[in-house]
Amino acid sequence: MASDPDDVMAANSAFYAAFEAGSAGGMLALWEHSDDVSCTHPGWPTLHGWTDVRRSWEGILRHGGAMQFILTDERVLVRGDVAWVHCTENLLAVEGPRGTVAAINLFVRNSSGEWKVIHHHGAQVVATMLN
Amino acid sequence: MASDPDDVMAANSAFYAAFEAGSAGGMLALWEHSDDVSCTHPGWPTLHGWTDVRRSWEGILRHGGAMQFILTDERVLVRGDVAWVHCTENLLAVEGPRGTVAAINLFVRNSSGEWKVIHHHGAQVVATMLN
Repeated sequence: MASDPDDVMAANSAFYAAFEAGSAGGMLALWEHSDDVSCTHPGWPTLHGWTDVRRSWEGILRHGGAMQFILTDERVLVRGDVAWVHCTENLLAVEGPRGTVAAINLFVRNSSGEWKVIHHHGAQVVATMLN
Repeated sequence: MASDPDDVMAANSAFYAAFEAGSAGGMLALWEHSDDVSCTHPGWPTLHGWTDVRRSWEGILRHGGAMQFILTDERVLVRGDVAWVHCTENLLAVEGPRGTVAAINLFVRNSSGEWKVIHHHGAQVVATMLN
């Protein structure tokens, strides 16, 4: 039986697999569908509630073009029925956004034992900070 | 007796009060002191572990100059012994950073019932997104 951190990391991997595949259906299925969800896309104000979060993913995945994520610094923490994964998203889009994003994905365990995304927050890492 | 959301919001207010006051001691006392803490300052890669997080606050609060935060869109969620607050930090620094930051502060309840910061993540909102 997989451990909680393994299950959360699997959910996190599914998140980026759906993102890379441009699969709105795949992405939306990973989220809790409630008013408690929120999402801060890089550079955006935070979106609150399922209606706005859903719309944002539909738009991004429809118009974003092919993206490839090389994830580094993945770290998972589980505290009860809440877990979060930190990772660095290294974006290799042929067209569209490039660069490095410091992300946190927050998950909650539902009554079926599934880990669902309740928050995603990405912040662009400013290159000059790294030099 | 204050509710859990009230207690978490009080901890969040203390976070920004310490930030505005430039009080490293006040800020550091609000955090869990463990390897599980992490912090993503706007534009920075994520820092992991108490040693690096502590050092970052000591540096920022020593050199940052006076800052004033007008917080908007504050929202709190509690799930068991984990809670998080979303807020928009509207920065009015006379010298130093200005602008708007979309932030999430993640709290965990310790064995004494106190809510401690375990993660802070701030992402600059790009002005052109709002126009």
